[in-house]
Amino acid sequence: MWNAGIPDVQRSQDRRELRIDRVGVKDLRYPLRWRLADGTEQNGVANFSLYVALAATEKGTHMSRFIELLEHVLAPGRPALELAGLPRLHADMLGRLHADSGRVEIGFTLFLKKSAPVSKVESLLDYQVAVAIDGAANDATRTLTVVVPVKSLCPCSKSIADYGAHNQRSHVTITVRTGEPILAEELIRIAESEASSEIYGLLKRADEKYITERAYDNPKFVEDLVRDVAARVRSDPRVLGFSVEAENFESIHNHSAYARIDG
Amino acid sequence: MWNAGIPDVQRSQDRRELRIDRVGVKDLRYPLRWRLADGTEQNGVANFSLYVALAATEKGTHMSRFIELLEHVLAPGRPALELAGLPRLHADMLGRLHADSGRVEIGFTLFLKKSAPVSKVESLLDYQVAVAIDGAANDATRTLTVVVPVKSLCPCSKSIADYGAHNQRSHVTITVRTGEPILAEELIRIAESEASSEIYGLLKRADEKYITERAYDNPKFVEDLVRDVAARVRSDPRVLGFSVEAENFESIHNHSAYARIDG
Amino acid sequence: MWNAGIPDVQRSQDRRELRIDRVGVKDLRYPLRWRLADGTEQNGVANFSLYVALAATEKGTHMSRFIELLEHVLAPGRPALELAGLPRLHADMLGRLHADSGRVEIGFTLFLKKSAPVSKVESLLDYQVAVAIDGAANDATRTLTVVVPVKSLCPCSKSIADYGAHNQRSHVTITVRTGEPILAEELIRIAESEASSEIYGLLKRADEKYITERAYDNPKFVEDLVRDVAARVRSDPRVLGFSVEAENFESIHNHSAYARIDG
Amino acid sequence: MWNAGIPDVQRSQDRRELRIDRVGVKDLRYPLRWRLADGTEQNGVANFSLYVALAATEKGTHMSRFIELLEHVLAPGRPALELAGLPRLHADMLGRLHADSGRVEIGFTLFLKKSAPVSKVESLLDYQVAVAIDGAANDATRTLTVVVPVKSLCPCSKSIADYGAHNQRSHVTITVRTGEPILAEELIRIAESEASSEIYGLLKRADEKYITERAYDNPKFVEDLVRDVAARVRSDPRVLGFSVEAENFESIHNHSAYARIDG
Repeated sequence: MWNAGIPDVQRSQDRRELRIDRVGVKDLRYPLRWRLADGTEQNGVANFSLYVALAATEKGTHMSRFIELLEHVLAPGRPALELAGLPRLHADMLGRLHADSGRVEIGFTLFLKKSAPVSKVESLLDYQVAVAIDGAANDATRTLTVVVPVKSLCPCSKSIADYGAHNQRSHVTITVRTGEPILAEELIRIAESEASSEIYGLLKRADEKYITERAYDNPKFVEDLVRDVAARVRSDPRVLGFSVEAENFESIHNHSAYARIDG
Repeated sequence: MWNAGIPDVQRSQDRRELRIDRVGVKDLRYPLRWRLADGTEQNGVANFSLYVALAATEKGTHMSRFIELLEHVLAPGRPALELAGLPRLHADMLGRLHADSGRVEIGFTLFLKKSAPVSKVESLLDYQVAVAIDGAANDATRTLTVVVPVKSLCPCSKSIADYGAHNQRSHVTITVRTGEPILAEELIRIAESEASSEIYGLLKRADEKYITERAYDNPKFVEDLVRDVAARVRSDPRVLGFSVEAENFESIHNHSAYARIDG
Repeated sequence: MWNAGIPDVQRSQDRRELRIDRVGVKDLRYPLRWRLADGTEQNGVANFSLYVALAATEKGTHMSRFIELLEHVLAPGRPALELAGLPRLHADMLGRLHADSGRVEIGFTLFLKKSAPVSKVESLLDYQVAVAIDGAANDATRTLTVVVPVKSLCPCSKSIADYGAHNQRSHVTITVRTGEPILAEELIRIAESEASSEIYGLLKRADEKYITERAYDNPKFVEDLVRDVAARVRSDPRVLGFSVEAENFESIHNHSAYARIDG
Repeated sequence: MWNAGIPDVQRSQDRRELRIDRVGVKDLRYPLRWRLADGTEQNGVANFSLYVALAATEKGTHMSRFIELLEHVLAPGRPALELAGLPRLHADMLGRLHADSGRVEIGFTLFLKKSAPVSKVESLLDYQVAVAIDGAANDATRTLTVVVPVKSLCPCSKSIADYGAHNQRSHVTITVRTGEPILAEELIRIAESEASSEIYGLLKRADEKYITERAYDNPKFVEDLVRDVAARVRSDPRVLGFSVEAENFESIHNHSAYARIDG
């Protein structure tokens, strides 16, 4: 209708005989409602990238349909998104674009309410989460990534110094490929419990004392951190594949210490 | 209670005789509900920085109270934030910290629903918004900043070329100091209406034709863009001071063209 | 000597039986001299990440040796780096760390002198370059990535509009896996010659007219751009594998159009 | 010549009666040779932004002249830049653009060779440096900014914990307005000597022991850090104005502690 009589250049044939692995829209920001483990919903802002594969004979895709999909799926009346529901969104995309395979990427900030270890005062902590659905509709892989900020304390520094030990903020990044849904909250708990100490938004002095001593009692190299987290992740039967990364923003250097295990 | 018997180092006196202009917490992410012009609420994620001034005689501030403030103000049952309500948040902060002046900074992504110019299909567009309240409780300045993505088309290129004209995405940044509240939506409309063309999330081909021709009919240098926007902003009696910036991410260079007017 | 009598915690044995794929230092900035195609050297700043694999039985690596390697390899008297010399750096790293495999990543800004198309005035343009050597010393893969800023002009917009066409800055990213060295300059030329137009630092009005018309005469969808570049890259017998990406920072949207071909 | 017969749209008159405070080019990357305190030159990559003021009656500036200026000033045969030489570059820009005032901004990474505290092994550390010249040719202000990465250790944590203390990487940012040139190296030394400990690229275990104990012996709140640095900076008679900021990337939180003194 609106486009009646206006030539549709994308619909023509292509002769270069090159299949395109991914074509679509990248870095769209849209409001997101995400369903948590406990059934509650969390509102936020997500970064979406949506791609489909394009056969060698097709000249182009129809970019506006990706936005129509988001407008439809994220409309106010619709249910909140969750990992278990993403394959449906992915299949919907493939249908709208007449594509045999494609990729949906969603990244957002997740907030979890945490209680300080001694005072039990509550506050939120923010985590980066990314999910991806990739492949054909009936054979897509699902991956979930969480970036978890924690504290690491250096065993070498503790061992050689008469007192004190250098410590710093670290990022533990866990990516899992999974058939059954796994909750971001589960992976976050693994990373937090294996770090020298987990961290918090709000701490009273009694909590700060606890965390300081907890980290000193629990020193870990970046190698220990990835191994301890990877040992937990690989033991989960729902995990079909994984990578675990740890990056320590070293407080004695201006670079990071980093380790990674793929499994 | 929790801290009973634990020394409070921050409460001691300081002898360096240096007042601190700002001390507090920076880059806290927290969920935000923001009230729009039409009374509806928008959920998102905000970046908060909260600072107070510290007298030369005081050794330190109490960092945890800033987080307590956010936990209180942003709790689920509380009303959504809006520019008009920020002075109360600012005064609450000064009271909790026993400070005579301070600064609240909030940055977030605002989404507005837009209708495409011809087809009228609707989609969201995202804008960066920042608000700041600064100073003493009864004499604080309020500033509002919006970053508005638009299209600019170069008059020189149009004028010298036999056909076509280079164009690109641009950012128009408007900052206003104001007594009475001004809505972000008002500033966004000014920037969008003064650009070569406003931009959209979802466009049909008829819309793309319209925007292409609209921009070609309406070429603007980066100098024109800041002047046309600044002329509109300075004519608003609620504006006590302003800056208008335009940055064109030039499509014929790998750097930006930039202009700024302060008033 | 300096460490005599100080316990070396990293040297102890590990019992978790988890091999670490990569451990080392990340995001080290160091001055870099890089040898260009014409034999001249270019000075800049590089970001280095250096990793080795760690056997399941080893507790940790020796982080300081990575920095010693850089201090040695990048010392003032030493020859400039070039892609052909990186396998030696990689082998040196494996030797110092007693590792059977590892990964060297170097990212930097490359400047090429370009002549404007009509006036021939010269100026520099900046490109992001990344190189990686990965694997065992005698069987490492080499990858080279260049990010090339260009101009793209939309065929649909040109076709449907009575005049004008939307265009924008785009990034073409080419990654090649290669046995024989390939020069970054070769890949950059491919991306620039296949874009709607290449871009420049310094342009006179006659050049701006040329580029405006050249782009209008040479419209390309993001799909065309990746296909045309990929067709050139895959025809090079030195290329063992590749990916070609194009990202258009759309001037009518606030998101990117993106396409990718892997081969 | 090249432009003969091509209309020059920027040269026409403007009737909006709005002076533009800054117009020019932003975020140009160019190779930079910078002269250090000891007379040696350091090669790197700089980010340049160059602006001039534009009278209310002038329609536009000539963007290409900014690039011509850089091409001229940074040409291979020319002397290395240093803070003392920037007023000449600034005056050259005003002359080429026929402007009565303007602003030059240059940002780059500076490397200093440091000796580890015990082993004396040498390595480079990287610092962000920014310089700006702003105003009329004969009355321009000069500002120099350095961002210095250091270690901070929390006095509260040390005081309340039976052992250990949380510590982290921090950024100390010093900005000075100055008539006579001040060297970036001087400001860097102030920040490093006032931190809980300075940091290094390469450390042996004996050095790590020293730094760990040094930081534990020298705890500082973010308030202490800005005050101790500000007290040093304001005592320098060459400093006409300053700001000192400290940002601690807290290892027990996912946000920063921050303080700032203006003087």
